[in-house]
Amino acid sequence: MSDLLWPGDHRAGDHLTDASFLHATIAVEAAWLGALVDAGITPGGARADLAGLVTDADAIELARGAEASGNPVVPLVGLLRDRLGTSSPDAARWLHRGLTSQDVVDTALMLGARDAVGAVRRELRAQVQALADLVESHRNTPMVARTLTQHAVPTTFGLKTAQWLTGVLDAYDDVAALVFPVQVGGAAGTMAAAVELAGAAAEPVPTVTDLAVVVADRLGLTPSTPWHTTRTSVTRLGDAAVRCTDAWGRLANDVLTLSRPEIGELSEGAGGGSSTMPHKANPALSVQVRRAALAAPALGSTLHLAAAESVDERADGAWHTEWSTLRTLLRRTIVAGSQTSDLLAGLKVHTDRMATRLADARDDVRAEQRSMAELAGTSATGDYLGAADAFLEAPLARAAGILAKETT
Amino acid sequence: MSDLLWPGDHRAGDHLTDASFLHATIAVEAAWLGALVDAGITPGGARADLAGLVTDADAIELARGAEASGNPVVPLVGLLRDRLGTSSPDAARWLHRGLTSQDVVDTALMLGARDAVGAVRRELRAQVQALADLVESHRNTPMVARTLTQHAVPTTFGLKTAQWLTGVLDAYDDVAALVFPVQVGGAAGTMAAAVELAGAAAEPVPTVTDLAVVVADRLGLTPSTPWHTTRTSVTRLGDAAVRCTDAWGRLANDVLTLSRPEIGELSEGAGGGSSTMPHKANPALSVQVRRAALAAPALGSTLHLAAAESVDERADGAWHTEWSTLRTLLRRTIVAGSQTSDLLAGLKVHTDRMATRLADARDDVRAEQRSMAELAGTSATGDYLGAADAFLEAPLARAAGILAKETT
Amino acid sequence: MSDLLWPGDHRAGDHLTDASFLHATIAVEAAWLGALVDAGITPGGARADLAGLVTDADAIELARGAEASGNPVVPLVGLLRDRLGTSSPDAARWLHRGLTSQDVVDTALMLGARDAVGAVRRELRAQVQALADLVESHRNTPMVARTLTQHAVPTTFGLKTAQWLTGVLDAYDDVAALVFPVQVGGAAGTMAAAVELAGAAAEPVPTVTDLAVVVADRLGLTPSTPWHTTRTSVTRLGDAAVRCTDAWGRLANDVLTLSRPEIGELSEGAGGGSSTMPHKANPALSVQVRRAALAAPALGSTLHLAAAESVDERADGAWHTEWSTLRTLLRRTIVAGSQTSDLLAGLKVHTDRMATRLADARDDVRAEQRSMAELAGTSATGDYLGAADAFLEAPLARAAGILAKETT
Amino acid sequence: MSDLLWPGDHRAGDHLTDASFLHATIAVEAAWLGALVDAGITPGGARADLAGLVTDADAIELARGAEASGNPVVPLVGLLRDRLGTSSPDAARWLHRGLTSQDVVDTALMLGARDAVGAVRRELRAQVQALADLVESHRNTPMVARTLTQHAVPTTFGLKTAQWLTGVLDAYDDVAALVFPVQVGGAAGTMAAAVELAGAAAEPVPTVTDLAVVVADRLGLTPSTPWHTTRTSVTRLGDAAVRCTDAWGRLANDVLTLSRPEIGELSEGAGGGSSTMPHKANPALSVQVRRAALAAPALGSTLHLAAAESVDERADGAWHTEWSTLRTLLRRTIVAGSQTSDLLAGLKVHTDRMATRLADARDDVRAEQRSMAELAGTSATGDYLGAADAFLEAPLARAAGILAKETT
Repeated sequence: MSDLLWPGDHRAGDHLTDASFLHATIAVEAAWLGALVDAGITPGGARADLAGLVTDADAIELARGAEASGNPVVPLVGLLRDRLGTSSPDAARWLHRGLTSQDVVDTALMLGARDAVGAVRRELRAQVQALADLVESHRNTPMVARTLTQHAVPTTFGLKTAQWLTGVLDAYDDVAALVFPVQVGGAAGTMAAAVELAGAAAEPVPTVTDLAVVVADRLGLTPSTPWHTTRTSVTRLGDAAVRCTDAWGRLANDVLTLSRPEIGELSEGAGGGSSTMPHKANPALSVQVRRAALAAPALGSTLHLAAAESVDERADGAWHTEWSTLRTLLRRTIVAGSQTSDLLAGLKVHTDRMATRLADARDDVRAEQRSMAELAGTSATGDYLGAADAFLEAPLARAAGILAKETT
Repeated sequence: MSDLLWPGDHRAGDHLTDASFLHATIAVEAAWLGALVDAGITPGGARADLAGLVTDADAIELARGAEASGNPVVPLVGLLRDRLGTSSPDAARWLHRGLTSQDVVDTALMLGARDAVGAVRRELRAQVQALADLVESHRNTPMVARTLTQHAVPTTFGLKTAQWLTGVLDAYDDVAALVFPVQVGGAAGTMAAAVELAGAAAEPVPTVTDLAVVVADRLGLTPSTPWHTTRTSVTRLGDAAVRCTDAWGRLANDVLTLSRPEIGELSEGAGGGSSTMPHKANPALSVQVRRAALAAPALGSTLHLAAAESVDERADGAWHTEWSTLRTLLRRTIVAGSQTSDLLAGLKVHTDRMATRLADARDDVRAEQRSMAELAGTSATGDYLGAADAFLEAPLARAAGILAKETT
Repeated sequence: MSDLLWPGDHRAGDHLTDASFLHATIAVEAAWLGALVDAGITPGGARADLAGLVTDADAIELARGAEASGNPVVPLVGLLRDRLGTSSPDAARWLHRGLTSQDVVDTALMLGARDAVGAVRRELRAQVQALADLVESHRNTPMVARTLTQHAVPTTFGLKTAQWLTGVLDAYDDVAALVFPVQVGGAAGTMAAAVELAGAAAEPVPTVTDLAVVVADRLGLTPSTPWHTTRTSVTRLGDAAVRCTDAWGRLANDVLTLSRPEIGELSEGAGGGSSTMPHKANPALSVQVRRAALAAPALGSTLHLAAAESVDERADGAWHTEWSTLRTLLRRTIVAGSQTSDLLAGLKVHTDRMATRLADARDDVRAEQRSMAELAGTSATGDYLGAADAFLEAPLARAAGILAKETT
Repeated sequence: MSDLLWPGDHRAGDHLTDASFLHATIAVEAAWLGALVDAGITPGGARADLAGLVTDADAIELARGAEASGNPVVPLVGLLRDRLGTSSPDAARWLHRGLTSQDVVDTALMLGARDAVGAVRRELRAQVQALADLVESHRNTPMVARTLTQHAVPTTFGLKTAQWLTGVLDAYDDVAALVFPVQVGGAAGTMAAAVELAGAAAEPVPTVTDLAVVVADRLGLTPSTPWHTTRTSVTRLGDAAVRCTDAWGRLANDVLTLSRPEIGELSEGAGGGSSTMPHKANPALSVQVRRAALAAPALGSTLHLAAAESVDERADGAWHTEWSTLRTLLRRTIVAGSQTSDLLAGLKVHTDRMATRLADARDDVRAEQRSMAELAGTSATGDYLGAADAFLEAPLARAAGILAKETT
């Protein structure tokens, strides 16, 4: 899989690709079938290994087949039953019984989302470390603060990076709080088919609703009552992803601004080349991170719209809007996260330029200090850095908490 | 204040109006000035009552004056100083010292947001109660479930309302978790001016960063280090607001669908009239709630974009994008919340129509049951409601938890 | 009316305020009533002057009343009939007959939009003039071109402003092509009521559909068949407005970048002040224009969503989403347009800084030239400005065409 | 290429796939190189056939390589030069000289967009025909009109489809007006490199700016001055695409509503099946069209944001945001267009249900007629269809105009 139009896409690897999604749908069907057998609802002969029955090579045909019913599970179940055919007629017969297409699509997407979010979280953690290091290293690196593009007063690069860090910590908190629920509801979220099947079991079976717990356990998801038309899990995912790109975009903007040649206070470790100008070292990572930050809010809003447009016991289009939107948003979040980690790892801080600029701008950036001193009847002598240093402690403490927890 | 183009706007009362915002900005200036005096940084003579110095009548002039500097605080401070003039020259002299415009705008917006969110939370709580009652009342009200607009299998109106309830509970959780931080950072988030002033105080003063805690306490906000360019508090507010309208839009869609005359299973308590057709009883509340749900995601995305486009120590436009967007989003959320509460309070459930429909559709909605029974070798006899009843417990328990907590 | 949270809002004057909208709705009712009388459908005694019957003082009450029916026309018609009461019982009786609420709201919004767009068009024209002057003045002002934030090759400020001009010309073309259709359809877009009334007229009447033409003429709108659920006129309005803010945002970004103190090649005529730092001259107009450009795309998308979500013969929420969105978008477009005109009128171009920068960056920005010369086997001697001058002609010609047409 | 998460994606075929884009970039390089040779700027030995030098198999490597520079052209040019290596050293040497990466990306995207829009236009034309037929066929098919979900007055299915048709005609007009400009500007839009090269040519060459005309002609695009930072061509494309999905979404909503079993006035030709419920015939095409209409506005707004965020002579992220967004939007537009054409071709109109409903609702839908008759002092006798028939003429005439033109 290539994506020439979203450079860096390869960083998202197999996350939420068609192949991964297909694999996840089969894992869902297998977990459910296994649960039916284990519960004694389905005869032991229905136990079958579904792995390998359907492969990437089937994806094109399945994608075409998905249109008739509006989702890829209908043709997938058909294909699995065909292939189980003679080898496991019982499995063919019992496969998918009790589930509905939405159960499989939603659960498979949650599997993909869980893994994607895991990758994002690893990037966030790496950034927390890198940023905490930058904050510590640059506690005493004074520079000009800029507001509305103009020189304001002095600050430190440590405080600037503490602001970046706080954004990343906030994103981390939201990402870490995400939950990935299993979806097992049957045709209309009542599990009626499963209950019907269980009622006929030879032995008393555990409550049918426990089957969803079993399936969640097997798949590593969170048990849940059906959420076919209550899409909070999806919008929270989207919001957390956009919170990430917000934080990264904000810091990329600073790198882009401060690496302008006239400013030159920061530069990317390895700037990107030009197809025609040999001297250029473009801030290519920052540009690509900023790209993601510009595009993400609209994708997040699409997930909200899909949630708001739910209706009945399965929505007539809003649900379908989520799938590809979620894939795009999460893959791009992984890519931007990875690029941001690289950006931070390689960031060059030109403290000399910061110092020179601050010295050159002294008259302007100390104007406020002079007026305060005049007001207070004192003389303006200090660095005028205020509580810049004190403000580093809170984010550093939060960072330390995360780093301690994640390495345990 | 009227809004002919957003019917129901009056339900939002004074929340985040210009008058309220103006009042809040003055409260911020007063809290800060009081803190400076109490800390001994500023002479006691600077203590002054700012209330009433500037009134709604000044809003037009202040709004015009806001353009030159790009925000309304610069002209406000000028006006306050003028009016303090001879009566309290010390107050005029010390007013706003140590703050920057963004401190005042952000803190005032957080005051407005806190109150607006309080109103939203009260609506959510009322809805939790109303929905829990509906769920309980309609545990045993069977109806046709619909997926992709078509009849699927039986469900209960209790389970449908449990889905609505879950959405409202999720929104409640996010709203209840919101934090409203004070913003006290000075020109570039270092509190340099305040430190400069404190350094000249006759007596040793508490650490200057404690001043932000004092101000937060006086205003009923949460203490925080400066967050001029880390806008998580704003995007979380926006996300929670959109989560509310998602939940309400979703249930309004059901009311709109089920109150179509051909379906007639629900109707609004008091339908809206027509300017020309005497017989019509339009689902006017649902229409207006749906309107809010359609518009909210784009507003939420604008807040994310503003966060992502932050740069330097104060952003050059992104910050300014937030203010009006936040006001519009929060006011509309209050309106939609209040309309949803009324909608639920007055909702008429036509259980006879539900029963008749289910009976008429029996052949279709029992098709799955027959194939399950055939598979299991049994006869399809029950109601085919599966675990519909069991699925009510989790949301009811969550509801009970909230209702218990909020009345304590 | 003030708007403390969108500084500059006063530049939009009365455009699309509640008062203007109210006035427009009455103008629509008056035009229709007059058309009925003139056509002989309604007795001459129904002729009445509606002006002044309802005033701004009624807006709050009407806004409240709008909620019951979901739009402000139902209470407005009620109020007008009450007040016509004894003085003009025939007018009270015939008022609004044949119309539906949507006719009045849509037509009134189109009246407001037409005037707002007129204001925008005047700003665009002024900008075309100002930009054409800048292009001409700076044909020979060389400066460094920047790509991906880094120095690239030389260009001229004339060519940069020609890019700005092209964006403004494109926006002008789209704005000038807008059409503002009258909406006269009756309850479901068939004009059935009007036909019913006309059928009873004493004299043969012109075809009823001509009544819409008459009303359009009286109001200065374009005749149209009913478009209750085909909202192209609204989305084209929105797209054109966003095309404007795109063009202005793009040029404001250049001003913001180039007026950074480290670059200093441009500055606003009158920079905005700071509440605390006396030296600062913030690019306040550019900041506010950029704010509008960041927020507008989401509002434009909301209008598209409203169009896409239309259904039946009147949409159940999507239509209602348009009104306030359109008002906000159009008022902000006027404000941003006016601010951009001022920005261009006062823009200071520091050609000395441009020249110095170009000289300082000579080695880098001529690197491509040297490699081209090496390739061609020549020596790199010229200014390396390529066809910069030639590229000015096309936009200047387009500008001249508009300026000639508009002054005729 | 498969897309399991956007069923129907295969309908977009190769439009704007990585393979197509790669092919287009090579076509651009070839056209430029050929133009240089023909103009005598480049030695004849530089003429080379680039076709087949780089294939789909290279896409993954190129996509990875794209990240370093931020776009895929830098690695593509490197690969082409490598492979031209010994066979055509002159071609390897002269390839891409005078161009910049953005020239190649933008021109290749315009090639892809032109073809995609061609496919969309064919669908629109087919829909114009299908809808004109429906309008004619159902001039005299009365049905209940619905407003705000409730029964209003009578209308005809002909008038409803005329509304659909008008939306499609509006979209057609905007699509047909699109222009696909070539992008040839060199490093910063001055064509300085090309001028430098031409200056050394043995023979006098045509003006260098003519080279862009030659390239445009070869590629079938429209000549243009460089538009690196003036993105109107892209936003107009996006707006037109969303105008299409608006029109299609609007009609799909009617199909979804009217094919609810309780209404049953319309149904899709071949409903989609369920994975578990044998009786269901879901309106699968309408669901998928609606999905596209819900998602498109946000994508269109992203293109506007990218335009608004342009800066300098090449934007630092905004430009990069466009590529994938445009691909997704255009492919989905083709898919939705094709699905809509199928939907219309197979649409089943249940005139008996329409007639029965209208008869059943007679008392309600004639209420307005009775009050009009009372007002006019007549008796309410007719069909109360007003000018429904007359309103068909305008859209039918527009349709005829398009159909005549397109078949010529």
